[in-house]
Amino acid sequence: MTSRSKSLFNTADPDMRKLLEKEAVLTDLGNASGLAYWDQDVNMPEGGEDARVKLISTLDTIQHDLQTRRYLDRLITRLEGKVDNGDFSEYDRALLRELRTDYDLASKLPRRFVTEQSKVNSKAQQTWKRAKMANDGKGDFSLFASDLAAVFDLKRREADYLGFQGHPYNALLDQYEQGLTVEQLDTIFPVLVDATKTILDRVEGAEVDRSFLSLKYPRGVQWSFARRLSRSLGFDFTRGRLDRAVHPFTIKFDPTDVRITNRADPNYLPAGVFGVIHETGHALYEQGVDRGLSGTRLATGTSMGIHESQSRFWENYVGRSNEFWEYWFPMLQRKFPSQLGSVNVDQFVKAINAVRPSPIRIEADEITYNIHVVIRYEIERDLLSGKIQTKDVPMIWNEKMRSYLGIDPQTDSQGALQDVHWSSGLVGYFPSYSLGNIYAAQFYNSLRNQHPDIDRSISKGEYGFIRQWLRENIHRHGSVYRPGDLSTNVTGEQLNPQYFVDYAMNKFGRLYGIDLKTSQLNPLHA
Amino acid sequence: MTSRSKSLFNTADPDMRKLLEKEAVLTDLGNASGLAYWDQDVNMPEGGEDARVKLISTLDTIQHDLQTRRYLDRLITRLEGKVDNGDFSEYDRALLRELRTDYDLASKLPRRFVTEQSKVNSKAQQTWKRAKMANDGKGDFSLFASDLAAVFDLKRREADYLGFQGHPYNALLDQYEQGLTVEQLDTIFPVLVDATKTILDRVEGAEVDRSFLSLKYPRGVQWSFARRLSRSLGFDFTRGRLDRAVHPFTIKFDPTDVRITNRADPNYLPAGVFGVIHETGHALYEQGVDRGLSGTRLATGTSMGIHESQSRFWENYVGRSNEFWEYWFPMLQRKFPSQLGSVNVDQFVKAINAVRPSPIRIEADEITYNIHVVIRYEIERDLLSGKIQTKDVPMIWNEKMRSYLGIDPQTDSQGALQDVHWSSGLVGYFPSYSLGNIYAAQFYNSLRNQHPDIDRSISKGEYGFIRQWLRENIHRHGSVYRPGDLSTNVTGEQLNPQYFVDYAMNKFGRLYGIDLKTSQLNPLHA
Repeated sequence: MTSRSKSLFNTADPDMRKLLEKEAVLTDLGNASGLAYWDQDVNMPEGGEDARVKLISTLDTIQHDLQTRRYLDRLITRLEGKVDNGDFSEYDRALLRELRTDYDLASKLPRRFVTEQSKVNSKAQQTWKRAKMANDGKGDFSLFASDLAAVFDLKRREADYLGFQGHPYNALLDQYEQGLTVEQLDTIFPVLVDATKTILDRVEGAEVDRSFLSLKYPRGVQWSFARRLSRSLGFDFTRGRLDRAVHPFTIKFDPTDVRITNRADPNYLPAGVFGVIHETGHALYEQGVDRGLSGTRLATGTSMGIHESQSRFWENYVGRSNEFWEYWFPMLQRKFPSQLGSVNVDQFVKAINAVRPSPIRIEADEITYNIHVVIRYEIERDLLSGKIQTKDVPMIWNEKMRSYLGIDPQTDSQGALQDVHWSSGLVGYFPSYSLGNIYAAQFYNSLRNQHPDIDRSISKGEYGFIRQWLRENIHRHGSVYRPGDLSTNVTGEQLNPQYFVDYAMNKFGRLYGIDLKTSQLNPLHA
Repeated sequence: MTSRSKSLFNTADPDMRKLLEKEAVLTDLGNASGLAYWDQDVNMPEGGEDARVKLISTLDTIQHDLQTRRYLDRLITRLEGKVDNGDFSEYDRALLRELRTDYDLASKLPRRFVTEQSKVNSKAQQTWKRAKMANDGKGDFSLFASDLAAVFDLKRREADYLGFQGHPYNALLDQYEQGLTVEQLDTIFPVLVDATKTILDRVEGAEVDRSFLSLKYPRGVQWSFARRLSRSLGFDFTRGRLDRAVHPFTIKFDPTDVRITNRADPNYLPAGVFGVIHETGHALYEQGVDRGLSGTRLATGTSMGIHESQSRFWENYVGRSNEFWEYWFPMLQRKFPSQLGSVNVDQFVKAINAVRPSPIRIEADEITYNIHVVIRYEIERDLLSGKIQTKDVPMIWNEKMRSYLGIDPQTDSQGALQDVHWSSGLVGYFPSYSLGNIYAAQFYNSLRNQHPDIDRSISKGEYGFIRQWLRENIHRHGSVYRPGDLSTNVTGEQLNPQYFVDYAMNKFGRLYGIDLKTSQLNPLHA
């Protein structure tokens, strides 16, 4: 453990001590709510739903009450007046910066609104589950449409309360990735769409055998492999858990208690394997936060985009590489001899990387994945501005799927109902996934430059130096640096989609044995 | 489901509505803390300990803050002024009665004290676990002595804050069983001790083969049997869970979410079997509470003694009866053919009822069980008054074990470290267990009088009418009636140990084929 448990803050200052005390209470309330949420997904008996919705709403309301107390404002203001003198560190300044931002944001949201939103979202989540399961698992969007309308209604009101320049969606984007705007995404996303089209056009018709990925893979064996994989990548089970849930996610209560969930699809091996690598990537970020930041809002990943860069880094850059499977494939074969006995590692790596448009986001390949994000982004943006209605979402969804990817979702559960996000009020979140892909490419590029021998280590199952590099440069800082600053510190520049495009052209060119033209790096923010 | 989900309270009254809103928040906070506690025992990774201790302490402090607000006092007072007019029901009056009691009690405890106590107890619980596991599982009480001293120190201070007449222990007893006093226990317990001595003297030397209970019983098979048993007794798994924990317990977040934990000892069958019946008894009480009481402090068992009467009822009166095993033993034999194939049901019932002093409370037979309670009672009482010191507890413990039961605990984990209660600040709680035995005998007697055919139903595995009788008479009322009133409503009299003594003399006389003189019923409170 490189992290310290001694506080990194200026506890000699009485105001700072008071602030840290208040902050610890807010952190605990957030964690109590998080635990209730985790339990709801992992453990809760179905009958407990109504009581749980109320419980989470109560905790969120109390947190909001305490977060908007005048006393807190005065304390922050007093500390802002002296934080630039020599006694305070960058940690103190970062904490004040985040508290000020959150105080100002929270103060804009009326208490009644927060309670209502918490209740509506909790209910919508349960409705979504039922709608997705309805119709023998095919799903029925119409069961969910009015709950979704209520969620977006509140999101629009939230944007109005918070205020925004340009599109109302900017107010929501800003909460997951500070400063991110519709205008920016409308510049970045076309770069990804173009690259995807280029690759899709060139690989179309290339036959890749993926049939062996869809044989029967018993859940129990998958779980034991997943645990082993997660542990070997560095997930610390004395400070975390791995459980089953319908939708994989990561949640942290402290750097010492970080929980991931995963699923094991008995008919599709990659879902569970890459699910667990992905969530482990998130978890390593949270477990790697300096414990001296514990009990404050700095003790977590700095933005959703950076968070997603960590999961993508492990899932795609490490976990889908040839070298990774040189090490793991023999073991996987031993676990599933009848399914994989006659497959070799090259065939396996080709199959898990095959570019193949799918209706399901979390099963998409690295390339078409971004299109799933773009589709959701466009729908969110247009729902929020009122340009489209929730009842029309399945139709619009399917149209976009056809036009971007040439595929036709057969059911709602494979279409607009597939993701939990909207039902939990996560609007403005999806773009983070593509930001994650982009940041991951930037970080990977920097890491490779400093460790040119990375491939050889991965092929030996050694990830220690990768973890250390990520921890040193990214994880331990928690939210001390904002995403743009962190990116600049680590890679020398801000968000730049060209690294991802170049990586993708190179990787898929090699995989398919074709020459995909790599453009020159053309930093957007330079 | 006989229970309603419509509120039973006078929601037409605006003050009552306000009170119910406040009460719902307090209930939610209690449940959030309960969930954190449950998770700590069932799921939490070891590293999460420190953060969890802080979390629970924060929630308890906030709850205490809200519970002692002047506004609440004024609201209660206002309602007390009008609650006797015709618009209010016994539910409203009961809620006000409980709120008034709890408000007055909570207001006597300073905020700082509550925070301190929550922290000390959480820490003591972790220390207890370590101390019990220490020394290769033999336990080391000395590791726990100073934490225990801190717990009792605070308990003494708590008694002083709350105020008491007579012994300071009365202030603590009152929290689990209203009105119960040292003076009363010093009358009741000798009746139990005398009866135990009589039975022990007479059955001494009688050989009962129990060896087959201590063979290897694989955990997995035990768990599947336990689940089946619990379901068949009426535990509703759509409104509850059964999990593994070091120490079995029941916790409820709502009548719709009631969780039990159990253990399966691979070397001792009865631990898991009677553990799950016992906890199911507690759970049926909580699941049977009228849902119209949800979100208030009335939606739970009315006292620890009555609660324990429900677990004892199922564990002993039903679960250790001959008739019960006439139905279940064939299935148990099929599950464990090599262990139980050559045992018959009579031998089995004799073995599980054998009077045999044991160092372990939760493995004690029905008769000597009360002695375990008496020993803890005497130690608690004397620790609280300062008559003895925590460091001397193992010595005193072992002396009492020798003198009452003639046995000599070989290790601390089999002695003074065996129970979790003290470490979680549950002082004054143990007597409830014997109260439970006594109440159970009274309820059983009433039920038998109304349903003389009870034995025949049990022998057919039919428990529906028992459950219905308990639900109708006890469960659905939650905490609407105080224990003494409930007992009088159901059995026509208050707590009376003679029913237990008569039941025990009769049962063990039959089991051992000896004539144990049954005294005349001599109601203590008549």
